[in-house]
Amino acid sequence: MKNLLVAQSGGPSAAINATLCGVIEKGLANQNIDKVYGARNGIIGLLSDRMIELNALVSDPQALQLLCQTPSSALGSCRMKLSHWKESAFEYEKIISVFRKYNIGYFIYIGGNDSMDTVHKLAEYCRFKKINDICIVGAPKTIDNDLVETDHCPGFGSAAKYIATTFSEIACDCNVYALPAVTIVEVMGRDAGWLTAASALGRINGDAAPDFIYLCERPFSVEDFLRDVRKKLAEKHAVVVAVSEGIQNEAGEYITECMQMKGEDAFGHKILAGAARYLEEVIREEIGCKVRSVELNLMQRCASHVASAADIYEARLLGMAAAEYAVAGGSGKMAAIKRASTTPYRFALDFVDIEKIANKVKTVPDDWINEEGNDVTPEMLDYLLPLIQGELPCTYQNGVPVHFKLF
Amino acid sequence: MKNLLVAQSGGPSAAINATLCGVIEKGLANQNIDKVYGARNGIIGLLSDRMIELNALVSDPQALQLLCQTPSSALGSCRMKLSHWKESAFEYEKIISVFRKYNIGYFIYIGGNDSMDTVHKLAEYCRFKKINDICIVGAPKTIDNDLVETDHCPGFGSAAKYIATTFSEIACDCNVYALPAVTIVEVMGRDAGWLTAASALGRINGDAAPDFIYLCERPFSVEDFLRDVRKKLAEKHAVVVAVSEGIQNEAGEYITECMQMKGEDAFGHKILAGAARYLEEVIREEIGCKVRSVELNLMQRCASHVASAADIYEARLLGMAAAEYAVAGGSGKMAAIKRASTTPYRFALDFVDIEKIANKVKTVPDDWINEEGNDVTPEMLDYLLPLIQGELPCTYQNGVPVHFKLF
Repeated sequence: MKNLLVAQSGGPSAAINATLCGVIEKGLANQNIDKVYGARNGIIGLLSDRMIELNALVSDPQALQLLCQTPSSALGSCRMKLSHWKESAFEYEKIISVFRKYNIGYFIYIGGNDSMDTVHKLAEYCRFKKINDICIVGAPKTIDNDLVETDHCPGFGSAAKYIATTFSEIACDCNVYALPAVTIVEVMGRDAGWLTAASALGRINGDAAPDFIYLCERPFSVEDFLRDVRKKLAEKHAVVVAVSEGIQNEAGEYITECMQMKGEDAFGHKILAGAARYLEEVIREEIGCKVRSVELNLMQRCASHVASAADIYEARLLGMAAAEYAVAGGSGKMAAIKRASTTPYRFALDFVDIEKIANKVKTVPDDWINEEGNDVTPEMLDYLLPLIQGELPCTYQNGVPVHFKLF
Repeated sequence: MKNLLVAQSGGPSAAINATLCGVIEKGLANQNIDKVYGARNGIIGLLSDRMIELNALVSDPQALQLLCQTPSSALGSCRMKLSHWKESAFEYEKIISVFRKYNIGYFIYIGGNDSMDTVHKLAEYCRFKKINDICIVGAPKTIDNDLVETDHCPGFGSAAKYIATTFSEIACDCNVYALPAVTIVEVMGRDAGWLTAASALGRINGDAAPDFIYLCERPFSVEDFLRDVRKKLAEKHAVVVAVSEGIQNEAGEYITECMQMKGEDAFGHKILAGAARYLEEVIREEIGCKVRSVELNLMQRCASHVASAADIYEARLLGMAAAEYAVAGGSGKMAAIKRASTTPYRFALDFVDIEKIANKVKTVPDDWINEEGNDVTPEMLDYLLPLIQGELPCTYQNGVPVHFKLF
């Protein structure tokens, strides 16, 4: 009888612990698995032999429920890429020795792009070394929604729901005064505009924001932006704009770099202003009306209290499926979501060769952005809508959500 | 039979519409009141005769419930102070003529400090002019919690609950990597630190943030701040700090002004960086570890989806009480909350002379801040805790909260 190991990697999300939960549940329930271990801080915990046994810690339904409403990685995380084993096998040998020490037969790695690179290299190494009794499977996670070969990524739906909710609330907030005002809201995403696109859902019940949406997939023109805002200010007093943190000009430079090139800050080094902060200055200078910038910052990836039920459900299912697949002997694959239909929303789980996924980025298709490049199309809304459906009961204590702590 | 008028003023909150709801409910149910009117954008709507009849618009329980879960002022708001009637009576005469036109016998003004100044002046003017058939009553509202003569202000509890929830989630978010990192979170409040103090509730269920809390009531020393952070980084890797936007140095200068004096931005004018952004640079320069600044910005005052049930309940009760008091002939007062006991939490409503309230600010008592000036005391927690209790059902549609629109 073998043991199962699970670890988490990459940036926090509201759903990564739901996937962990799914893996643990399958591990506990499967009669071919003895113990379920977690490695602390992803493969760093593996390399440094920092393992914890999860069986006793996460065994009752209440613990599993609390784990699902706890944002970020309960096992801790890392940002680490393995060098290729052909160049340096040291890390691989260390990892295999830890697998042997704990009698690990199945390893589930939950994470984004870099983590799938780890799954790919580890599985390849095992194949090359003819290590056939260790199955390695990836489970996707990234609020950025930029993994290929899966319809969407767990964590994205909850971030999208937070963003939609927040834009609908900001719409109410910005509309109170009868004065011209511009509010620029910066959403995470340097390479892919999925999260920024989700701001469009803020309008779905008739709230008045955002007025414009600029994704990082299209070159950003300050002139066009000013023209859009001026035109809208002639129609209404409160204009709300959503921008991706990664918007770039025609030359492919981040627009924040333009600012950095122009000025240096008080300490003599470059100003690290965000895109919204930069555009706030542009509006102040060029239009001169009241203007404010807002960054959704950490909140968009950790606001578990407003998680999407659809997202948490799928995240948990993917964790279960990944564990089941590994126990059945599968390796070198990532559990993925295939959308069967949008209306009604139906999906199936699938397993995709990991080399198709690692180090690739899925950006927003150009035809899901409108011609003017200042909004998304109805196809984008159709795609997004099922992912934010449903609210979960959240356990509060003393008026604040309860979070599960593994250590 | 007279009509009742209600208007809203000042900055948005998650509870100001609950007070509006209470006023409307009382207005609709009271047999001595014919119509309930709302003035758009506070007294600006009064001065410009922009009135809407609310009877038909907000008459069913569902509309009232949706109104209570809608952030910001459904009637619109303003930031306007009346000049004194002894200097210029023009605005007063205009307001009284609009009262007469709509047969207003009762006027409830919901707002903060400036709005209570308006109530004060209007009531005084009526008394001086022997206008005895118009009763003017204030209902408090401010997330800043800085009105005197009331234990706390509606809107504060919901903002405090959002802040506590967000700190508990940020604690999870910041703890994932095994690297030294500092996160500085800026909370609203230029003159009073109540909201920043509420971050302490983020720890109430054992979450690890904030590590330090700096309120604007105490002079802020960058040296002490760096000493605190360095000491904490020796104990744990993720340090989270809460700061009031209005922290000032010993000389009484906002610390952001220090930065502005040092540097100018790309456009040649002063950098309008917030306190957290400034301290981010200080940490980067002086400690050199990973550092990030977060502003809770608009979200802390409009996150109705995570409103405090206690706050919304009290806000509604205060609206009802203010309307009832006016109809009974009371004028020149503000409805206030008197705390009868903390454990168990009990309160009563009271009516306070408006001149005791207008233009005064209630700051955090010095003995509710610890000696080092980097945290709050247990007395502060006892005070805060009842205000964030309870969660409300929030009506979602399409995965996003529904907001009520009056126009």
